[in-house]
Amino acid sequence: MPIVEIHMMEGRPVEVKARLVEEVTRAVADTLNVKPEQVRIILHEMDPHHYAIGGTLWADRG
Amino acid sequence: MPIVEIHMMEGRPVEVKARLVEEVTRAVADTLNVKPEQVRIILHEMDPHHYAIGGTLWADRG
Amino acid sequence: MPIVEIHMMEGRPVEVKARLVEEVTRAVADTLNVKPEQVRIILHEMDPHHYAIGGTLWADRG
Amino acid sequence: MPIVEIHMMEGRPVEVKARLVEEVTRAVADTLNVKPEQVRIILHEMDPHHYAIGGTLWADRG
Amino acid sequence: MPIVEIHMMEGRPVEVKARLVEEVTRAVADTLNVKPEQVRIILHEMDPHHYAIGGTLWADRG
Amino acid sequence: MPIVEIHMMEGRPVEVKARLVEEVTRAVADTLNVKPEQVRIILHEMDPHHYAIGGTLWADRG
Repeated sequence: MPIVEIHMMEGRPVEVKARLVEEVTRAVADTLNVKPEQVRIILHEMDPHHYAIGGTLWADRG
Repeated sequence: MPIVEIHMMEGRPVEVKARLVEEVTRAVADTLNVKPEQVRIILHEMDPHHYAIGGTLWADRG
Repeated sequence: MPIVEIHMMEGRPVEVKARLVEEVTRAVADTLNVKPEQVRIILHEMDPHHYAIGGTLWADRG
Repeated sequence: MPIVEIHMMEGRPVEVKARLVEEVTRAVADTLNVKPEQVRIILHEMDPHHYAIGGTLWADRG
Repeated sequence: MPIVEIHMMEGRPVEVKARLVEEVTRAVADTLNVKPEQVRIILHEMDPHHYAIGGTLWADRG
Repeated sequence: MPIVEIHMMEGRPVEVKARLVEEVTRAVADTLNVKPEQVRIILHEMDPHHYAIGGTLWADRG
Protein backbone atom coordinates (compact mmCIF):
# COMPACT_ATOMS: atom_id res chain seq x y z
CA MET A 1 0.00 0.00 0.00
CA PRO A 2 -0.47 2.31 -1.83
CA ILE A 3 -1.07 0.65 -5.19
CA VAL A 4 -1.20 2.84 -8.31
CA GLU A 5 -2.62 1.87 -11.71
CA ILE A 6 -1.82 4.07 -14.74
CA HIS A 7 -3.86 3.62 -17.93
CA MET A 8 -1.87 5.13 -20.82
CA MET A 9 -1.53 4.91 -24.60
CA GLU A 10 0.89 2.23 -25.79
CA GLY A 11 4.13 3.07 -27.58
CA ARG A 12 6.38 4.90 -25.09
CA PRO A 13 9.97 3.66 -24.79
CA VAL A 14 11.04 1.80 -21.64
CA GLU A 15 13.16 4.76 -20.48
CA VAL A 16 10.03 6.91 -20.31
CA LYS A 17 8.22 4.22 -18.29
CA ALA A 18 11.20 3.96 -15.93
CA ARG A 19 11.15 7.74 -15.32
CA LEU A 20 7.34 7.69 -14.97
CA VAL A 21 7.33 5.09 -12.17
CA GLU A 22 10.27 6.82 -10.46
CA GLU A 23 8.56 10.24 -10.44
CA VAL A 24 5.10 8.94 -9.53
CA THR A 25 6.58 6.85 -6.68
CA ARG A 26 8.36 9.95 -5.33
CA ALA A 27 5.14 12.02 -5.58
CA VAL A 28 3.07 9.37 -3.79
CA ALA A 29 5.67 8.59 -1.11
CA ASP A 30 6.31 12.27 -0.32
CA THR A 31 2.66 13.33 -0.09
CA LEU A 32 1.30 10.22 1.67
CA ASN A 33 4.37 9.99 3.93
CA VAL A 34 5.14 6.35 3.15
CA LYS A 35 8.42 4.68 2.13
CA PRO A 36 9.02 4.36 -1.64
CA GLU A 37 9.32 0.57 -1.19
CA GLN A 38 5.67 0.54 -0.08
CA VAL A 39 4.51 2.01 -3.42
CA ARG A 40 3.56 -0.42 -6.20
CA ILE A 41 2.67 0.74 -9.71
CA ILE A 42 0.90 -1.17 -12.50
CA LEU A 43 1.02 0.26 -16.05
CA HIS A 44 -1.90 -0.61 -18.33
CA GLU A 45 -0.95 0.20 -21.93
CA MET A 46 -3.80 0.70 -24.39
CA ASP A 47 -4.17 0.24 -28.12
CA PRO A 48 -5.75 3.38 -29.73
CA HIS A 49 -8.69 1.15 -30.70
CA HIS A 50 -9.35 0.40 -27.03
CA TYR A 51 -9.94 3.95 -25.73
CA ALA A 52 -12.72 6.36 -26.62
CA ILE A 53 -13.75 9.91 -25.77
CA GLY A 54 -17.21 11.21 -26.70
CA GLY A 55 -18.16 7.95 -28.41
CA THR A 56 -15.23 7.94 -30.85
CA LEU A 57 -12.26 5.58 -30.70
CA TRP A 58 -8.94 7.38 -30.06
CA ALA A 59 -7.66 5.82 -33.32
CA ASP A 60 -10.47 7.53 -35.25
CA ARG A 61 -10.09 10.99 -33.70
CA GLY A 62 -8.25 13.38 -36.05
CA MET B 1 -16.20 11.72 -15.65
CA PRO B 2 -17.81 9.24 -16.08
CA ILE B 3 -15.14 6.66 -16.95
CA VAL B 4 -16.29 3.26 -18.22
CA GLU B 5 -14.21 0.06 -18.39
CA ILE B 6 -15.48 -2.88 -20.46
CA HIS B 7 -13.88 -6.31 -19.98
CA MET B 8 -14.67 -8.42 -23.06
CA MET B 9 -13.38 -11.43 -24.98
CA GLU B 10 -10.76 -10.60 -27.61
CA GLY B 11 -11.38 -11.02 -31.32
CA ARG B 12 -14.11 -8.55 -32.31
CA PRO B 13 -13.44 -6.42 -35.40
CA VAL B 14 -12.74 -2.68 -34.99
CA GLU B 15 -16.13 -1.76 -36.47
CA VAL B 16 -17.87 -3.59 -33.63
CA LYS B 17 -15.72 -1.78 -31.06
CA ALA B 18 -16.51 1.56 -32.72
CA ARG B 19 -20.26 0.86 -32.51
CA LEU B 20 -19.89 -0.40 -28.92
CA VAL B 21 -18.26 2.80 -27.64
CA GLU B 22 -20.73 4.94 -29.60
CA GLU B 23 -23.78 3.16 -28.15
CA VAL B 24 -22.44 2.90 -24.59
CA THR B 25 -21.46 6.61 -24.65
CA ARG B 26 -24.99 7.52 -25.75
CA ALA B 27 -26.53 5.31 -23.01
CA VAL B 28 -24.31 6.82 -20.30
CA ALA B 29 -24.67 10.43 -21.49
CA ASP B 30 -28.46 10.20 -21.81
CA THR B 31 -29.12 8.55 -18.44
CA LEU B 32 -26.54 10.47 -16.39
CA ASN B 33 -27.35 13.75 -18.16
CA VAL B 34 -23.74 14.55 -19.12
CA LYS B 35 -22.24 15.59 -22.46
CA PRO B 36 -20.88 12.72 -24.63
CA GLU B 37 -17.45 14.42 -24.61
CA GLN B 38 -17.33 13.85 -20.82
CA VAL B 39 -17.60 10.06 -21.26
CA ARG B 40 -14.37 8.06 -21.52
CA ILE B 41 -14.32 4.33 -22.26
CA ILE B 42 -11.47 1.82 -21.82
CA LEU B 43 -11.81 -1.60 -23.49
CA HIS B 44 -9.97 -4.49 -21.80
CA GLU B 45 -9.77 -7.41 -24.23
CA MET B 46 -9.21 -10.87 -22.73
CA ASP B 47 -7.62 -14.06 -24.00
CA PRO B 48 -9.94 -17.07 -23.33
CA HIS B 49 -7.20 -18.43 -21.05
CA HIS B 50 -7.52 -15.32 -18.85
CA TYR B 51 -11.18 -15.58 -17.86
CA ALA B 52 -12.89 -18.26 -15.79
CA ILE B 53 -16.39 -19.10 -14.59
CA GLY B 54 -16.97 -21.75 -11.91
CA GLY B 55 -13.25 -22.56 -11.69
CA THR B 56 -12.86 -23.42 -15.38
CA LEU B 57 -11.00 -21.33 -17.94
CA TRP B 58 -13.25 -19.95 -20.71
CA ALA B 59 -10.98 -21.70 -23.22
CA ASP B 60 -11.71 -25.06 -21.58
CA ARG B 61 -15.48 -24.68 -21.32
CA GLY B 62 -17.21 -26.68 -24.08
CA MET C 1 -18.75 -11.78 -19.86
CA PRO C 2 -18.75 -8.90 -20.66
CA ILE C 3 -18.17 -7.11 -17.37
CA VAL C 4 -18.61 -3.32 -17.28
CA GLU C 5 -17.33 -0.95 -14.57
CA ILE C 6 -18.67 2.63 -14.47
CA HIS C 7 -16.82 5.23 -12.35
CA MET C 8 -19.23 8.11 -11.67
CA MET C 9 -19.81 10.96 -9.23
CA GLU C 10 -21.89 10.00 -6.18
CA GLY C 11 -25.35 11.40 -5.54
CA ARG C 12 -27.63 10.17 -8.32
CA PRO C 13 -30.99 8.67 -7.25
CA VAL C 14 -31.55 4.90 -7.57
CA GLU C 15 -33.98 5.38 -10.46
CA VAL C 16 -31.20 6.96 -12.53
CA LYS C 17 -28.87 4.06 -11.71
CA ALA C 18 -31.59 1.58 -12.69
CA ARG C 19 -32.05 3.31 -16.07
CA LEU C 20 -28.26 3.55 -16.54
CA VAL C 21 -27.66 -0.20 -16.12
CA GLU C 22 -30.67 -1.00 -18.31
CA GLU C 23 -29.50 1.24 -21.18
CA VAL C 24 -25.83 0.27 -20.95
CA THR C 25 -26.76 -3.44 -20.87
CA ARG C 26 -28.86 -2.98 -24.01
CA ALA C 27 -26.03 -1.09 -25.77
CA VAL C 28 -23.44 -3.77 -24.87
CA ALA C 29 -25.71 -6.75 -25.66
CA ASP C 30 -26.81 -5.33 -29.01
CA THR C 31 -23.35 -4.35 -30.28
CA LEU C 32 -21.42 -7.37 -28.94
CA ASN C 33 -24.24 -9.76 -29.88
CA VAL C 34 -24.53 -11.37 -26.43
CA LYS C 35 -27.60 -12.02 -24.25
CA PRO C 36 -28.41 -9.28 -21.70
CA GLU C 37 -28.12 -11.88 -18.91
CA GLN C 38 -24.43 -12.25 -19.82
CA VAL C 39 -23.75 -8.57 -19.09
CA ARG C 40 -22.66 -7.61 -15.56
CA ILE C 41 -22.21 -4.00 -14.46
CA ILE C 42 -20.40 -2.62 -11.40
CA LEU C 43 -21.01 1.03 -10.42
CA HIS C 44 -18.16 2.79 -8.59
CA GLU C 45 -19.49 5.99 -7.02
CA MET C 46 -16.93 8.67 -6.17
CA ASP C 47 -16.78 11.44 -3.60
CA PRO C 48 -15.80 14.79 -5.27
CA HIS C 49 -12.66 14.70 -3.11
CA HIS C 50 -11.62 11.43 -4.76
CA TYR C 51 -11.47 12.54 -8.41
CA ALA C 52 -9.14 15.07 -10.02
CA ILE C 53 -8.58 16.63 -13.43
CA GLY C 54 -5.45 18.65 -14.18
CA GLY C 55 -4.14 18.23 -10.62
CA THR C 56 -7.21 19.74 -8.94
CA LEU C 57 -9.78 17.82 -6.92
CA TRP C 58 -13.27 17.85 -8.49
CA ALA C 59 -14.56 19.35 -5.21
CA ASP C 60 -12.20 22.31 -5.64
CA ARG C 61 -12.95 23.03 -9.28
CA GLY C 62 -15.31 26.01 -9.60
CA MET D 1 -20.85 -12.09 -8.10
CA PRO D 2 -18.19 -12.30 -6.76
CA ILE D 3 -15.79 -11.12 -9.45
CA VAL D 4 -12.04 -11.61 -8.87
CA GLU D 5 -9.20 -9.87 -10.74
CA ILE D 6 -5.65 -11.25 -10.40
CA HIS D 7 -2.72 -9.07 -11.56
CA MET D 8 0.29 -11.37 -12.10
CA MET D 9 3.57 -11.52 -14.01
CA GLU D 10 3.27 -12.93 -17.53
CA GLY D 11 4.83 -16.24 -18.56
CA ARG D 12 3.11 -18.99 -16.57
CA PRO D 13 1.91 -22.02 -18.56
CA VAL D 14 -1.83 -22.54 -19.13
CA GLU D 15 -1.90 -25.50 -16.73
CA VAL D 16 -0.79 -23.23 -13.89
CA LYS D 17 -3.52 -20.72 -14.78
CA ALA D 18 -6.10 -23.54 -14.87
CA ARG D 19 -5.07 -24.69 -11.36
CA LEU D 20 -4.99 -21.07 -10.13
CA VAL D 21 -8.59 -20.32 -11.14
CA GLU D 22 -9.75 -23.68 -9.81
CA GLU D 23 -8.15 -23.16 -6.37
CA VAL D 24 -9.13 -19.48 -6.05
CA THR D 25 -12.73 -20.31 -7.06
CA ARG D 26 -12.87 -22.99 -4.36
CA ALA D 27 -11.43 -20.61 -1.74
CA VAL D 28 -13.90 -17.84 -2.63
CA ALA D 29 -16.93 -20.14 -2.91
CA ASP D 30 -16.20 -21.92 0.37
CA THR D 31 -15.56 -18.81 2.47
CA LEU D 32 -18.27 -16.58 0.97
CA ASN D 33 -20.77 -19.48 0.84
CA VAL D 34 -21.65 -19.04 -2.85
CA LYS D 35 -21.80 -21.59 -5.67
CA PRO D 36 -18.59 -21.96 -7.74
CA GLU D 37 -20.59 -21.07 -10.87
CA GLN D 38 -21.20 -17.62 -9.34
CA VAL D 39 -17.45 -16.90 -9.18
CA ARG D 40 -15.82 -15.16 -12.16
CA ILE D 41 -12.07 -14.57 -12.42
CA ILE D 42 -10.16 -12.21 -14.73
CA LEU D 43 -6.37 -12.70 -15.06
CA HIS D 44 -4.33 -9.58 -15.90
CA GLU D 45 -0.86 -10.66 -17.05
CA MET D 46 1.89 -8.05 -16.83
CA ASP D 47 5.10 -7.44 -18.73
CA PRO D 48 8.03 -6.89 -16.28
CA HIS D 49 8.33 -3.38 -17.74
CA HIS D 50 4.77 -2.62 -16.59
CA TYR D 51 5.14 -3.21 -12.84
CA ALA D 52 7.26 -1.30 -10.33
CA ILE D 53 8.10 -1.47 -6.63
CA GLY D 54 9.88 1.40 -4.89
CA GLY D 55 10.16 3.40 -8.13
CA THR D 56 12.02 0.69 -10.07
CA LEU D 57 10.59 -1.38 -12.89
CA TRP D 58 10.36 -5.12 -12.08
CA ALA D 59 12.51 -5.77 -15.18
CA ASP D 60 15.28 -3.59 -13.72
CA ARG D 61 15.29 -5.06 -10.21
CA GLY D 62 18.20 -7.52 -9.80
CA MET E 1 3.00 -9.28 -6.97
CA PRO E 2 0.49 -10.86 -7.39
CA ILE E 3 -2.25 -8.38 -6.53
CA VAL E 4 -5.83 -9.69 -6.21
CA GLU E 5 -9.02 -7.60 -6.26
CA ILE E 6 -12.30 -9.19 -5.11
CA HIS E 7 -15.60 -7.44 -5.92
CA MET E 8 -18.27 -8.78 -3.54
CA MET E 9 -21.62 -7.83 -2.04
CA GLU E 10 -21.38 -5.80 1.17
CA GLY E 11 -22.52 -7.14 4.53
CA ARG E 12 -20.25 -10.07 5.44
CA PRO E 13 -18.78 -10.07 8.96
CA VAL E 14 -15.06 -9.36 9.41
CA GLU E 15 -14.39 -13.00 10.36
CA VAL E 16 -15.58 -14.11 6.92
CA LYS E 17 -13.32 -11.53 5.25
CA ALA E 18 -10.37 -12.71 7.34
CA ARG E 19 -10.95 -16.33 6.26
CA LEU E 20 -11.48 -15.23 2.64
CA VAL E 21 -8.11 -13.45 2.37
CA GLU E 22 -6.37 -16.31 4.17
CA GLU E 23 -7.76 -18.99 1.83
CA VAL E 24 -7.33 -16.95 -1.38
CA THR E 25 -3.73 -16.09 -0.39
CA ARG E 26 -2.99 -19.79 0.16
CA ALA E 27 -4.59 -20.71 -3.22
CA VAL E 28 -2.61 -18.02 -5.09
CA ALA E 29 0.71 -18.69 -3.31
CA ASP E 30 0.48 -22.46 -3.79
CA THR E 31 -0.46 -22.41 -7.48
CA LEU E 32 1.79 -19.51 -8.57
CA ASN E 33 4.65 -20.72 -6.36
CA VAL E 34 5.18 -17.40 -4.57
CA LYS E 35 5.51 -16.62 -0.86
CA PRO E 36 2.25 -15.65 0.92
CA GLU E 37 3.86 -12.31 1.91
CA GLN E 38 4.06 -11.44 -1.80
CA VAL E 39 0.26 -11.71 -2.19
CA ARG E 40 -1.81 -8.55 -1.69
CA ILE E 41 -5.62 -8.57 -1.73
CA ILE E 42 -8.03 -5.64 -2.09
CA LEU E 43 -11.73 -6.21 -1.22
CA HIS E 44 -14.26 -4.01 -3.04
CA GLU E 45 -17.60 -4.23 -1.25
CA MET E 46 -20.70 -3.30 -3.25
CA ASP E 47 -24.09 -1.92 -2.37
CA PRO E 48 -26.88 -3.99 -4.06
CA HIS E 49 -27.80 -0.82 -5.97
CA HIS E 50 -24.31 -0.78 -7.52
CA TYR E 51 -24.31 -4.17 -9.25
CA ALA E 52 -26.48 -5.37 -12.12
CA ILE E 53 -27.01 -8.55 -14.13
CA GLY E 54 -29.07 -8.53 -17.32
CA GLY E 55 -29.87 -4.82 -16.97
CA THR E 56 -31.46 -5.14 -13.52
CA LEU E 57 -29.95 -3.87 -10.27
CA TRP E 58 -29.11 -6.66 -7.80
CA ALA E 59 -31.38 -4.87 -5.28
CA ASP E 60 -34.33 -5.19 -7.68
CA ARG E 61 -33.85 -8.85 -8.58
CA GLY E 62 -36.35 -11.02 -6.68
CA MET F 1 -5.67 9.98 -21.11
CA PRO F 2 -3.77 9.10 -19.00
CA ILE F 3 -6.06 7.88 -16.22
CA VAL F 4 -4.52 7.09 -12.82
CA GLU F 5 -6.11 5.05 -10.01
CA ILE F 6 -4.58 5.18 -6.51
CA HIS F 7 -5.62 2.56 -3.94
CA MET F 8 -4.76 3.91 -0.47
CA MET F 9 -5.72 3.49 3.17
CA GLU F 10 -8.64 5.70 4.27
CA GLY F 11 -8.24 8.51 6.78
CA ARG F 12 -5.98 11.15 5.22
CA PRO F 13 -7.20 14.77 5.38
CA VAL F 14 -8.41 16.49 2.20
CA GLU F 15 -5.32 18.72 2.08
CA VAL F 16 -3.12 15.64 1.72
CA LYS F 17 -5.31 14.33 -1.09
CA ALA F 18 -5.16 17.72 -2.82
CA ARG F 19 -1.33 17.70 -2.68
CA LEU F 20 -1.24 14.04 -3.78
CA VAL F 21 -3.24 14.64 -6.98
CA GLU F 22 -1.26 17.82 -7.71
CA GLU F 23 2.12 16.08 -7.39
CA VAL F 24 1.10 12.89 -9.21
CA THR F 25 -0.41 14.95 -12.05
CA ARG F 26 2.86 16.88 -12.39
CA ALA F 27 4.90 13.63 -12.37
CA VAL F 28 2.69 12.01 -15.03
CA ALA F 29 2.42 15.12 -17.24
CA ASP F 30 6.17 15.80 -17.14
CA THR F 31 7.31 12.26 -17.88
CA LEU F 32 4.64 11.35 -20.45
CA ASN F 33 4.80 14.80 -22.06
CA VAL F 34 1.06 15.49 -21.87
CA LYS F 35 -0.83 18.54 -20.57
CA PRO F 36 -1.90 18.40 -16.90
CA GLU F 37 -5.52 18.88 -18.00
CA GLN F 38 -5.28 15.51 -19.80
CA VAL F 39 -4.48 13.68 -16.54
CA ARG F 40 -7.39 12.24 -14.53
CA ILE F 41 -6.94 10.65 -11.11
CA ILE F 42 -9.33 8.41 -9.16
CA LEU F 43 -8.62 7.80 -5.45
CA HIS F 44 -9.88 4.48 -4.01
CA GLU F 45 -9.83 4.72 -0.20
CA MET F 46 -9.77 1.42 1.69
CA ASP F 47 -10.97 0.32 5.10
CA PRO F 48 -8.19 -1.61 6.95
CA HIS F 49 -10.52 -4.63 6.87
CA HIS F 50 -10.51 -4.53 3.06
CA TYR F 51 -6.76 -4.94 2.41
CA ALA F 52 -4.52 -7.91 3.18
CA ILE F 53 -0.85 -8.83 2.87
CA GLY F 54 0.31 -12.43 3.35
CA GLY F 55 -3.23 -13.63 4.14
CA THR F 56 -3.77 -11.24 7.06
CA LEU F 57 -6.11 -8.25 7.05
CA TRP F 58 -4.29 -4.90 7.44
CA ALA F 59 -6.48 -4.25 10.51
CA ASP F 60 -5.14 -7.42 12.15
CA ARG F 61 -1.45 -6.82 11.43
CA GLY F 62 0.33 -5.53 14.55
